[in-house]
Amino acid sequence: MAEDEAVTTEQAWRLRNGSIVPEGAQVIVEEPLQIIVDGTPYAVLMRTPGDDVHLAAGFCLTEGLVDCSAHIGAIASCPQEDVNSVAVTRAGAPAATELRPPSMAVRSSCGLCGREQIDDLARRLPTIESDFQISSADLLALGRRMQQGQTYFQPTGGTHAAALFDASGELLALAEDVGRHNALDKAIGRLLLDDSLGRAATAVLSGRGSFEMIQKAARAGIPLVASVSAPTNLAIALAKRLGLTLVGFLRERSLTVYAGEERVQDLPG
Amino acid sequence: MAEDEAVTTEQAWRLRNGSIVPEGAQVIVEEPLQIIVDGTPYAVLMRTPGDDVHLAAGFCLTEGLVDCSAHIGAIASCPQEDVNSVAVTRAGAPAATELRPPSMAVRSSCGLCGREQIDDLARRLPTIESDFQISSADLLALGRRMQQGQTYFQPTGGTHAAALFDASGELLALAEDVGRHNALDKAIGRLLLDDSLGRAATAVLSGRGSFEMIQKAARAGIPLVASVSAPTNLAIALAKRLGLTLVGFLRERSLTVYAGEERVQDLPG
Repeated sequence: MAEDEAVTTEQAWRLRNGSIVPEGAQVIVEEPLQIIVDGTPYAVLMRTPGDDVHLAAGFCLTEGLVDCSAHIGAIASCPQEDVNSVAVTRAGAPAATELRPPSMAVRSSCGLCGREQIDDLARRLPTIESDFQISSADLLALGRRMQQGQTYFQPTGGTHAAALFDASGELLALAEDVGRHNALDKAIGRLLLDDSLGRAATAVLSGRGSFEMIQKAARAGIPLVASVSAPTNLAIALAKRLGLTLVGFLRERSLTVYAGEERVQDLPG
Repeated sequence: MAEDEAVTTEQAWRLRNGSIVPEGAQVIVEEPLQIIVDGTPYAVLMRTPGDDVHLAAGFCLTEGLVDCSAHIGAIASCPQEDVNSVAVTRAGAPAATELRPPSMAVRSSCGLCGREQIDDLARRLPTIESDFQISSADLLALGRRMQQGQTYFQPTGGTHAAALFDASGELLALAEDVGRHNALDKAIGRLLLDDSLGRAATAVLSGRGSFEMIQKAARAGIPLVASVSAPTNLAIALAKRLGLTLVGFLRERSLTVYAGEERVQDLPG
């Protein structure tokens, strides 16, 4: 990810200590990326340039268009006249992952309201079967390592990050993006294309642990999601149904476990 | 907005000062709301319950489905079997606001990449004609008032807020939601249905000043957007093209002006 693609300088005026001075402000870049699946324009994501192929691969997995890297026959940047694009050609994707646009209208068919609908949704997502465990001290350390690995947040203040670690705490992938969903998809996509997604044990997220982030982690088979910010009730409910561990408010010295607490070793019996 | 709708208590485990203790954690509620327009399911938003009718009204305006309150013939909560819904019936909405689903695929037709596309998009959005001005000190004060008005952020840490002020600094509407787009749509929708949207001069946002937030403010005719967080380059470019003032990093004693600086009174010549 070349820094010039992801960050730009804008002429701005900054008030500080009572006086306003002109300054060249570093600003995060937000640009559309079109995802073309099997020749059909499928979605346009507002994203930060860089890792576009990883983003497209991760998006296809977490949207349920492919189930594994073998389902991606070909994937490549494919500049169109008016918009950056990545073209994905699927190979042997099961009928269950038929192509349909990810519109908000389609989401309505999920009918997410109430326990029955959570159950319905959970049935369409994989249950997490993993005996991975980690101590709360190690979780705090992973949070610090994600923060240390962020390149664009310090200069621009405008990015989210997602970091994937293996069970021993090794950093497998770290991605930044103007959108928190994109950051997670980029990190997942990198491992998917490396055929190493199965190693991912913990996802650390800079943003909130909302419903859609749990969906994405479940599709990627990641057993533990730790977010620097708050979870939502729907995210907690889905994590509980899928057997996924959800940690929130992962900070310097504190964290809160909302679901799947059996994976946090030092919880009192 | 009844607190029991928007906030719930979940059993959690909190690590603090080296020990883990069980606690009842207050968590923000995230639930789907279906927007039905002219009898057709149009979108499902993941939102925090409360102000649903305002959210639907604001969404219809900022999505370009209606241009003014007169275009809303009827609007009411309309519980469906499996999902909360608001039904909007339009009255005399111009042909330009034809009904089409807000899918990501539709956005692709915007082709937002590059100057030509920004120009195209800007032509479909109203240019801001307003001689509103404000001092940087008054902007800082509006930021503090939004923070003081937030109900759900303190207990849950899981909400965004949007506050709309008139030119004299009077608070017109403040809304909170798990989503920053929803918070702004709720505040805009409240004023739209009150026929007082024309009074809104400043929108203060807890989240980032991204492209879509500028789109929404422009559709609502709000000349100044001040965000507590970072802007993106695309938001700055759109604000400049539309004559909208964009302020970022609105904090206790500092702010940065990225576009439309002529509305900030005390900028040096």
